[in-house]
Amino acid sequence: MCSCLKLFSFLCPQDQFDNLEKYTQWGIEFVERYTKFVKERSEIELSYAKQIRNLSKKYQPKKNSREEEEYKYTSCRAFLMTLNELNDYAGQHEVIAESLSSQIISELTRYIQELKAERKAHFHDGRRAQQHIENSWKQLESSKRRFERDCKEADRAQHYFDKMDADINVTKADVEKAKQQAQMRHQIADDSKNEYLAYLQKFNKDQHEHYYTLIPHIFQRIQEMEERRIERIGESMRCYAEVERKVLPIVSKCLDGMTKAAESIEPKMDTKQVVETFKSGFEPPGDVEFEDYSVSMKRAVSESSFLNARGESRRRSRSKLWPLIKRNKVKTQTGAS
Amino acid sequence: MCSCLKLFSFLCPQDQFDNLEKYTQWGIEFVERYTKFVKERSEIELSYAKQIRNLSKKYQPKKNSREEEEYKYTSCRAFLMTLNELNDYAGQHEVIAESLSSQIISELTRYIQELKAERKAHFHDGRRAQQHIENSWKQLESSKRRFERDCKEADRAQHYFDKMDADINVTKADVEKAKQQAQMRHQIADDSKNEYLAYLQKFNKDQHEHYYTLIPHIFQRIQEMEERRIERIGESMRCYAEVERKVLPIVSKCLDGMTKAAESIEPKMDTKQVVETFKSGFEPPGDVEFEDYSVSMKRAVSESSFLNARGESRRRSRSKLWPLIKRNKVKTQTGAS
Repeated sequence: MCSCLKLFSFLCPQDQFDNLEKYTQWGIEFVERYTKFVKERSEIELSYAKQIRNLSKKYQPKKNSREEEEYKYTSCRAFLMTLNELNDYAGQHEVIAESLSSQIISELTRYIQELKAERKAHFHDGRRAQQHIENSWKQLESSKRRFERDCKEADRAQHYFDKMDADINVTKADVEKAKQQAQMRHQIADDSKNEYLAYLQKFNKDQHEHYYTLIPHIFQRIQEMEERRIERIGESMRCYAEVERKVLPIVSKCLDGMTKAAESIEPKMDTKQVVETFKSGFEPPGDVEFEDYSVSMKRAVSESSFLNARGESRRRSRSKLWPLIKRNKVKTQTGAS
Repeated sequence: MCSCLKLFSFLCPQDQFDNLEKYTQWGIEFVERYTKFVKERSEIELSYAKQIRNLSKKYQPKKNSREEEEYKYTSCRAFLMTLNELNDYAGQHEVIAESLSSQIISELTRYIQELKAERKAHFHDGRRAQQHIENSWKQLESSKRRFERDCKEADRAQHYFDKMDADINVTKADVEKAKQQAQMRHQIADDSKNEYLAYLQKFNKDQHEHYYTLIPHIFQRIQEMEERRIERIGESMRCYAEVERKVLPIVSKCLDGMTKAAESIEPKMDTKQVVETFKSGFEPPGDVEFEDYSVSMKRAVSESSFLNARGESRRRSRSKLWPLIKRNKVKTQTGAS
C-alpha cells in the first residue's frame, strides 16, 4: 500500500484529478465492454444450443408412425442414440451460456454499480480538499491585501505628521493630532500584520496537509479501487475459460455415447429382421407331374373332373410362381386354366 | 455368406421382391436422411464459428485508435489474448464443419448413387429370372394343351375306326382308310406327348434352378448390399463423433490460453502505467513566505516592482494549486492579481 501511495503521490495534483477521472471512467467502460462481450458470447451459445436441439428433435422418429417401428433395426436405434447424445451436447452449451450469465454477467453488472459509486465518492473528496485549500488561500490573500493597505495608510499618516512637525506655522494641537493619527495607523497596520501572519501559518499548514496527506490518501484509495477493478476483470476472464473447460468432459462423454451407438450397429441382425418381417413360410413348389391324357382316351367322363383338380393345384402353384406378375395378368392366366 | 444365403432363401419369392424393393428403397432414403442430418449439423457449426469469429473481431482494438494504445495495460492485453484464442476456437468449429462435409456428406452422397445403381441391377436380374420361368411355364402349358387335344383327336379317330370296323356295309377300303387315319392320329398324339414331356422336364429343371439357385443368389446379393449399406452408415456415425473428438484437445488448448491470459494480468503494473502516463514531475510547492509591507513603508518605488514579482510567483503557484478550478475561474483569479 505504502508503495502505491508513494507511486501515486508522485502525481502532482495539478490537472491529475481530471486525468484520473478520465482514466477511471475508461476503466469502468472497459468492465462494461467486457461484460457486453461475455453477454454476446452467452447469446451465441444459447442460439447454437437451440439450433442443435432443434436438429436433434427434427430427426427423432415421429410417434406412432411407420418411422417408429423402423427402430427395430440397429442402424435406426444407433441414429436415435446419436440424436439423444446430440441433445445432451446442446444442453452443455446451455450450461455454458447460463454459467457465463450467472457467474460473470450479473456479477460484473452489480460490481460496475459499486465501482461507479466508489469512484464518485473519491472525486467528491478530492474536490472538497481542493475547495478547502482554495478558501484558505483566499483568506490569506485578503488578509495580505488588508495589511498592505494599512501599511500604506500608516505611511501616509507618518508623512503627514513629519510634515506638520517640520512646519513652524502649525499649532502644537494640530501636531499632536497628526502624531496620534500616525500612531493609530501604525497600530492598525500591526494588527492586520498579525492577522496576515496567522492566515499565512494556517495556509502553509493546510497546503502541507493537502499535498502530503489528503491528496496522497485520495490517490491511494483511487489506486486501490483500480487494482481491485483489474483484479476483478482477471477473475472474470479466468472464470470465462473455466466455464467451458468444465463442460469438456461431459461433451467428450456425449461423443463416447455416439461412438458406442455407431458400434452397436449389427448389419446381420438388421437383415435377419428383414427376413423375419418378410418371410412367407412358403416352401418352394415341387416338380409339376406329368398329366397323361392318353390314359384318359375313351374315359371322357372322369377326364373333366380330373382336369378341374389340376386346374386348382395349378392355380395355387402358379400364384406361388409369379410374384412379380401384374395382378390382372395373373387373372387372365387363371381365367385361361 | 452361406448363412445369409440360408436366411434370405427362406423368403419365398412370392411378393417378396416387391417387399424387398420397398425395404431397400427405404434403406436408401435412410442414408439420404442421415446425410441431410449431417449436412444440417455442419451448417450449424459453420454459422456458430462465423458468429464467434465476428464476436472476436468486433472487440479487437481499432487500428491506430486510442483503443490500441490502451493495450499497454496488462488487462487490455489479456482481453486481446482471449479474443485471439476465441478466434482459434471458432476455427476448430470450422474444422468440424469441413470434416463432416468432406468425410461424411460427400462420401455418402457418392455412395448413395452406387447403391441406387446396384439395387436397380439386382431387381432387374430378379425380374429377368421371373420372366424366364414364366415363359418356361407357358411353353409347358401349350405343349400340354396340344397333347390333350391330340389325344382327343386320336380318341375320336379310334372311335370312328372301331365304328367302321364293326359296320358290315362298309367297304374294306373305307375301313383301311379309317384305320390309317386312327394310326396317324395316335402317332401325332405320341409326338406331342414326347414334346410335352420334354417341356415338362425343362420346366421342372428351370423351376428347381429358379428356387434353389437364381432367386437365392439374387436375395443373397441384395442382403450383402444391405449389410454393406448398414456397415457404411455405422462407419459414418463413428466418423461423426470422431470428427468432433479430434478438435477437443485443441479447444482445451484455447481455454488454457485464455486462462494464461487472465493470469497475466498485473494490477500493480497497470496502475504503475497510469502513474507513468500522468505524473507531471511537479514537486509540491513550498511554504508561501511572509511579505512584509511594513518595511516597504516610504519605499514606494521598489514596492511596485516587488509586488509584480510576487504576482508572478503567485500566479505560478496558484495554477499549481487549483487543478479542479474551472478554466474561466482561473482566468478571473489571474486577472485579479
